[in-house]
Order: sequence, then structure tokens, then C-alpha cells
Amino acid sequence: MSWEHPVDVVVTVDHDAETAAMQAGRRGPSMTGIGDFGANIGMPRLLDALGSRGIAATVFVPGWVAEQRPESVQAAAAAGHEIAAHGYLHEYPASLMDAGEERMVISRAIDALVAVTGTRPVGYRPPGSRYSDWTVGLLCDLGFRYGSATQDDDGASLPAGRPVPLAEIPCHWQLCDDLYGWQDDVRMSPGQVEDTWMSELEAIGRYPGRAFVLTVHPHQVGHPGRMAVLERVLDRAHSLGARFRTCEQIAAELLADGRGSADIES
Amino acid sequence: MSWEHPVDVVVTVDHDAETAAMQAGRRGPSMTGIGDFGANIGMPRLLDALGSRGIAATVFVPGWVAEQRPESVQAAAAAGHEIAAHGYLHEYPASLMDAGEERMVISRAIDALVAVTGTRPVGYRPPGSRYSDWTVGLLCDLGFRYGSATQDDDGASLPAGRPVPLAEIPCHWQLCDDLYGWQDDVRMSPGQVEDTWMSELEAIGRYPGRAFVLTVHPHQVGHPGRMAVLERVLDRAHSLGARFRTCEQIAAELLADGRGSADIES
Amino acid sequence: MSWEHPVDVVVTVDHDAETAAMQAGRRGPSMTGIGDFGANIGMPRLLDALGSRGIAATVFVPGWVAEQRPESVQAAAAAGHEIAAHGYLHEYPASLMDAGEERMVISRAIDALVAVTGTRPVGYRPPGSRYSDWTVGLLCDLGFRYGSATQDDDGASLPAGRPVPLAEIPCHWQLCDDLYGWQDDVRMSPGQVEDTWMSELEAIGRYPGRAFVLTVHPHQVGHPGRMAVLERVLDRAHSLGARFRTCEQIAAELLADGRGSADIES
Amino acid sequence: MSWEHPVDVVVTVDHDAETAAMQAGRRGPSMTGIGDFGANIGMPRLLDALGSRGIAATVFVPGWVAEQRPESVQAAAAAGHEIAAHGYLHEYPASLMDAGEERMVISRAIDALVAVTGTRPVGYRPPGSRYSDWTVGLLCDLGFRYGSATQDDDGASLPAGRPVPLAEIPCHWQLCDDLYGWQDDVRMSPGQVEDTWMSELEAIGRYPGRAFVLTVHPHQVGHPGRMAVLERVLDRAHSLGARFRTCEQIAAELLADGRGSADIES
Repeated sequence: MSWEHPVDVVVTVDHDAETAAMQAGRRGPSMTGIGDFGANIGMPRLLDALGSRGIAATVFVPGWVAEQRPESVQAAAAAGHEIAAHGYLHEYPASLMDAGEERMVISRAIDALVAVTGTRPVGYRPPGSRYSDWTVGLLCDLGFRYGSATQDDDGASLPAGRPVPLAEIPCHWQLCDDLYGWQDDVRMSPGQVEDTWMSELEAIGRYPGRAFVLTVHPHQVGHPGRMAVLERVLDRAHSLGARFRTCEQIAAELLADGRGSADIES
Repeated sequence: MSWEHPVDVVVTVDHDAETAAMQAGRRGPSMTGIGDFGANIGMPRLLDALGSRGIAATVFVPGWVAEQRPESVQAAAAAGHEIAAHGYLHEYPASLMDAGEERMVISRAIDALVAVTGTRPVGYRPPGSRYSDWTVGLLCDLGFRYGSATQDDDGASLPAGRPVPLAEIPCHWQLCDDLYGWQDDVRMSPGQVEDTWMSELEAIGRYPGRAFVLTVHPHQVGHPGRMAVLERVLDRAHSLGARFRTCEQIAAELLADGRGSADIES
Repeated sequence: MSWEHPVDVVVTVDHDAETAAMQAGRRGPSMTGIGDFGANIGMPRLLDALGSRGIAATVFVPGWVAEQRPESVQAAAAAGHEIAAHGYLHEYPASLMDAGEERMVISRAIDALVAVTGTRPVGYRPPGSRYSDWTVGLLCDLGFRYGSATQDDDGASLPAGRPVPLAEIPCHWQLCDDLYGWQDDVRMSPGQVEDTWMSELEAIGRYPGRAFVLTVHPHQVGHPGRMAVLERVLDRAHSLGARFRTCEQIAAELLADGRGSADIES
Repeated sequence: MSWEHPVDVVVTVDHDAETAAMQAGRRGPSMTGIGDFGANIGMPRLLDALGSRGIAATVFVPGWVAEQRPESVQAAAAAGHEIAAHGYLHEYPASLMDAGEERMVISRAIDALVAVTGTRPVGYRPPGSRYSDWTVGLLCDLGFRYGSATQDDDGASLPAGRPVPLAEIPCHWQLCDDLYGWQDDVRMSPGQVEDTWMSELEAIGRYPGRAFVLTVHPHQVGHPGRMAVLERVLDRAHSLGARFRTCEQIAAELLADGRGSADIES
């Protein structure tokens, strides 16, 4: 089997460490321990798996994680991965008071990444993968080149109606390793996750101009059995002819073209 | 393997777009974005998959969706699919105050479809697939020929005790693509959904006079891996000898006969 | 493969019709419609599947269901199945005020079954499969020969410490068709349920004196794909050498022996 | 297939009997019956399966269970398994008032085990597998040699920053038989659990210095179909070259070396 149409394959890594647990009000050593697992165990395995395949990923990092665990972020950057912003303390946009507070959060996220990597991020994924009513406006204002949150397309696009051109890299819940569940609420077995990802991967090339955007968290995907699933999916993508891209590369192409891949299908 | 008895196979499409999310009180660009995915991505793929197989489906459309996204409804009608009613804003009957409010909702739903398609719908599926105590009376009153909500049969029927003859096209939760879950509450993998639908499809022909009624939502089933599952199920149905029908066609046969297929089995 | 030790295989049918939905406070035509599906569609299919295999089952019937749907109960009795009691309106014992109220419920359940079948039931399964603190005492008092609720064994037994000898037929959640989920909360695919039941069936014969007690509901298992799973499990049980028994038959053997099968293993 | 690196395989048994249900406020004969199933049915099967394979496990026992069901604990000790502490009444550390109350609980747990086995336990797993902010300090204070709760590693380690050297044996939710669900909330089929455990087992040997730590409960894993899954996983581990260890053995090696296996990978 081979794809009818070329597909952009994007590996995005949400390097949340303990921020997601903290935000949910869960505390204690066993909760925040997923931060250690993510940074110390999951991230090196992920970098190895990507590096040995020559794949550059986009790593979304909350500002606080960059400050607390700079080595893990610098290691990813040094390995050629894009570092992009993901809130300061993994704040869900909808939980913030107003546009002013969200601007403060995003600005602080930018500053933290600049301090650790020396580079200003060009992409933003809102924690929880949902924009507030004002997130997109803020991203345009703050000079980002792309956002990554919407569920309205499965191709990357340059959505109309944004104040300035801002590309959108879609993400979809079924292509996220949160399928495995969270802590003691384990939900899918590795076989079910592999089935979900592979089904989508095999079929997506039937449609022109699509992007297969996977989202993984080092503390989730870093377990050996789950790493093996990810690696089989990446290898299958390669054998199907995947064009591996970072979000930044796709955004740059869209902004240069002035049109989204969505235009190709419709 | 082949069926012992012929089976009516009905593809029903609930074209809810963003109304289901709005009704659940979920807002924001990432929530309502499933409306864009449904109308712009899922619906064209669905129409292609049905069209290339020569299958006419029944598309249930909330009035508001018809008004906001008329092209997607007109495209379905132009392709030969039946357009039927599904509330105005996807209101659950049980959430309405009284029969008066439900009558207003259904009337407004009819008007919206007439305005967009030029045809008065003959079928109604209550959002949530559950009747209130007065829905059936209202449908009889407003001249509908069938309703589609009950779980008391797996064959289409002409239930006794209704004020005027009103056919019933059953629907069952396990034959709905909501098995995949909703937004971040992903539940079944494509393999599990395919297993659920195929098991039912393979076995239903053991019983006479049955109908296999599938319910899909463009924003759910429109993802490539899920489209592939749907297409395999349709192809298997075809190879088993399916009589593909719209709800309207089945209702017309029942009303002409004056009896339901349920009578055949019992 | 064949079992090392003989196994009693018991098919128990909880013929709840609409009582389970009513008890949960769910109303409306689409909710209570599962009663029609259970009695009119599921039960005949179940009786066929059992009858064609020469298997006698134990059918637990709430008193109210016996009164409202006597034909479905009489058909089961006429086909040689045991009819046993299951509350009056499917009342969970823990929800009743005191022993007096529970005695009234059980007495009324007995009366309803006697009126419909002409026979006094000898077995009782509390709705929800959980005893209150006084259920067992009441069953002893009211002349029952067995109860079926506990999870403390996977063999039938004659538990010590009961006022008079009262056998216990165990039941386990994973051997119940509620694995499929309920209404719109569909949980397992047919393949998962089959895996769960078959795994237990294949392995149970490694231990002496065990009983494989399946619990099905006509409105759940009556769907064609689910009937096919049940039939494959029954056929596999047969090929493994199952001794098909009703609860009453097992209880009679235990009471005659004065000891439970649990004694055999320990 | 064989592992690239040797792996420690640890079977841990949480012998909770009815304490987990009691703690959750669930009472009544059918709830506490899982205690009988665990102690009388599950534990002997587990001891057989381990014994016939020559595997020594670590059995974590709440103090109350040791007092109420001493024979089941003594049988495990006599068979060569390590007996370790697990609260007195299965108290979640986070639910206790302060360090004083937790100290009292742990002390009482120790006393109960000493009374029943004659040996002071050297290991502690907090019920719920989560430490409070003061658990680790108390364990150091009370002379334990290891704790087993954290999710921050998948190798056993000697974490820095503890008052005295205290080894840590990790445990992970996906390697626990609670995947099967609990009572009427059945979640995974045996095939899904086997897939989850086998995927992790097959892949873990790709990384040096790892430990595969399985957690089972006699009342969960004791059902025949689930025992068969466990036995296949143990046999596969053996064929992959597993070094079966108790927690105590691993802790002793770490404390002798003065370093954790985590040091090996990083």
C-alpha cells in the first residue's frame, strides 16, 4: 500500500512535565513525579527515537518547565528540534480572566523560552489545545507565525479572517497519547492506540494536502511499550512516503505561498 | 457467508455541525470548529463515499445548520440524499418546557429546511434520539411520515397506537459513530467500532425483516481512518446483499403496506 | 483443548424489561422502549438460541414485569426454563428502608410470579446483585433454596453461617452483558465481550468444582451481533464439556449433598 | 526476540481483601465479599502459579488484613514470599490529618505484620500508590529499606535527597490489574490487559537497568481468565530472560551498591 497523495507528518511533543498535574490541582510527590519521568526518562528516549530516524519535531514547552528543567529543553534544541511556546504554567486559556491576563501569560512564556534557548518561538499551542476568544488576536499581535489548536481541518492552513497571516497546524484528540489515559485512569491499551494512529495514517493519503499531526507527552509516551508503538507508527509513515516537517517549516511554506493546504482539497 | 434474509441498510447522517457543542454549553473557537470540520471536510468526504457507491442516505439537519451552512445541505440534496429534520438548534425534547415549545421548535426546523431545499421534510429524528412524551403526537399533527428515535425494535415498523400512521425507523447507540467518543473523551479505536458495526451487520440477516440503521456525524466520521471503517462496512453490506434505502423509502413502503417489518418476524 | 475438571455452566437471564430504567429515574418513550425490545425481540431470540441447543436457563423476573408482560414469562417457563424472583420493581436492596420493606418487596415478587406461572420461585437474585444486610435472612425465612448475588466465590456453595441451608450461585460482573454498556454509554465492543467471556470459560476448568455463571438481559444481548457472541460462547462451552444446569438444579444438588463445590477446591 | 539488556521482573501482590472497599465507604455482604474471594480463592491460585514457576513475590498487606486473615498471610510467607506493609486499613496517605496520624498508621501496620509473621517488614507501599509529603521521611525514620510508590522512573533507584538511603521500587498504573476495572465498572478485557502488559514487557529490555514491576490483587487477578493472562506474562518474561526478584532483594542490592539502576541508563 502507498499513499495516493503526499502527506506532511508532524511530531509535536508537549513537554508539560509536572505543570499539567499542578494545574489540575493535583499535588504531592507521586503526582509531580511525572515531571521527573517526563524530563529524565521520556524525553531522552524520545530524542533517541527521533534522532535515529532523522526526524525533527516541534517541542511545545510551558515557560515554567523551561526555567525548571532547562537542560531537557536545551537538549531538544541542540538535537535540531523546534522549541515552541505552550503557556507559562500550562494555563488553559478559558481559565484566564481576560485578554490582559492571557497576554501576560504568553509574554512570560516567550521570555522564558528566549532565556533558555536564545531564540524567540514562532509557534504557540494553547494548553488544552483550545483557544480562548482572544488567543488568535494575541498571537498575531505578538508576532507568532502559527498557532496549533483547532479541530476544524486535518490539513495545515492559513485561515481567513485573522488580523495578520497566522498559519494553523491542526491537532486532533485521537492522534494524541492522552488516549492512554492519565494516572490511574488508564483507558486504552497500546494495541488500541496503535490501531487508532495507524488507521488514520494509512488512510490520510487518500486526500490531497493533508497533515498527520501527532501529539505526544514525554511522561506518557516514554514507557517502553508505548515508545515501541510510536516507533512503529513513525516507521510506517516513513515507508508510506511521509514528508516529516516541523510546525515551523509548514508555517513558513504556507506563509510563503499565501495559501493553506486546505485550499488544495477544496 | 451470506444473509439468510434480506436486510434494509440505511445510512443516516446527523449533520449537527456546531449545534451539539453549543447546546452542551461548550463555546469558543476550538469547540465550534467541529462545525467547520463537519461541513467543510467531513460532509464532502461522506458525499464522495456514498456517491461512488450509489447509496442514497438520509441527512438529518437542524434548522439552524441549514440556515448557516446552506451549501452543505444543498450539496447533499443535489446528490440525491433525503434531507430530514433534526430540531432547530439541536434541542433535546426532554429539555423543552412543554408541547407548545416543542411544536415551535419543530415548525421552525421545517421552515428552515423548506427555505434551503424547497422541499418539506417527511421525517424527524429528535436530537439525542429520544422522544418527549408529546413528540410523536406533534409529528403526526405536523404531517410527518416517519420518526427515527426508538430503541424498541431493530426493524422499521408502523407502531400501533399512534394518532395517524407514522412509521418508525429505529436507531441504536452501538450503530452510531459517537462510539468514537467526543472531543477529548475519545473512547473506542477504529478497530473496536468496526468490530461493533461488523458484528451486528454480519448477524442481522439471520432474522427476517430487519433494518441495519447506521448513524454518522460528518465531524466524527470524517477523519480518514474512520471514513475507511465506514467504507469497509458499506462494502461488506453490499457484498452481503444489502438493500440500501433512505428512511423515506422505507416509510413509504410501510405506509403503503400498512404494516411494519416487525410483523414479519413475530 | 479440554477442561481438566468438569464445569457447571449456568445461563441466567435478568428479564428486567423497563424496570431497570424506571428505577434509575429514567423515563420517556425511548427509555422504556428497552422493555419492548427486551420482551418482544430479545427474549424470543434468546429462547430460540437456548432451545435449539437444549439448554435450560434460569430467568430472574421482577414481579412487575411478570404482571405487565406475562406472555414473555410464560413462554420462558413453557420452554422449560426456571423462573426465579428478582425484586418487584427491580429495587436495589440497599435503597430500601429496612428489613420490613424488603420483606414486602420480596413477598410481592413471589406473589406476582405465582400468579403468572403457578409455581413458587425457589431462587432469588437481588437487583443490582448485591444483598442488603438482611436479604439472606429474609430468603431463609421465606423458604428460598438459593440466592444469587455474591462475588466471594466462583463456584456454587452452601455458605456457612446462614440460618438454614441456602445455596449461593455466584455471579460476577465480567460475566454479565452489561459489559456492553448501557444506552448511550456503550463501553465494550462485541469482540471485547467475547474475549472476556471466552478467556474465563477456557480457563475455569483448570480448577475443580467451579461454575461459569453468565448473566444476560434480553434488551442487551438481543441485538444480532451480541446474540452471535453468546451463541459462540455457549457452543464453545459445549465443546469443552459443559454441564449445563439451572440454578435450581445446582442448589438441589448442594442441598442434597450438604456441601458446596467450594469445599472441593479448598 | 530477546532483550538487549537484562530486566528485573518483580511481582507485587496488594493483598487488600475488603479494606479497599471499606475505605471507599462501600459496605454490605456483596462488597466485603471480595475479601473472601481474594483470601480464599485468589491467593491460593496466585501462590500456586508463582510456586510452580519458582517465583518469589512481594506481598503488601494492610495490618488489618493480617489480623483478620492471618492464615492467608502466613501461607504466603511460608511459600517464601516477602511480606511488606501497606497501611493498616488501606488508608490513603493524603487522607490522613498529619504526619502524626500517618506515623501511627504505619507503626500499627508494622506491629500487625510482626504479630502474624514474626518478621519486621522492610518495605512499604502507601495505599493508592501515592506518598503524602511526609511519607518518605517517616519510612526513613521507621527503619524501612525501600518504598514503592513513585511514577518517576521505570527502574528501581536510590533517590537522592532522602534523609537516609531508602530505595524506591517504582510502580505504574498500566502494570496493575486494576486495568480490569472495579466491581461493576469493568473496563478492560483480558486481551487488552495482556496487550498492555506484554507490550511493556517485550520493549523494556531495550533500555538498560530497568525493572518490570507488576501489581496484582488476589480479588482481581484471581479469576481464571485473568490468572491465565498473568501466567502467560510470567512465562513470556521467563523466556525473555527475566531476573525475578522481590522488592527486598532489589533494595538490598541497591543499598549495597549505593546507587540506583537509574544511574545506569543516564
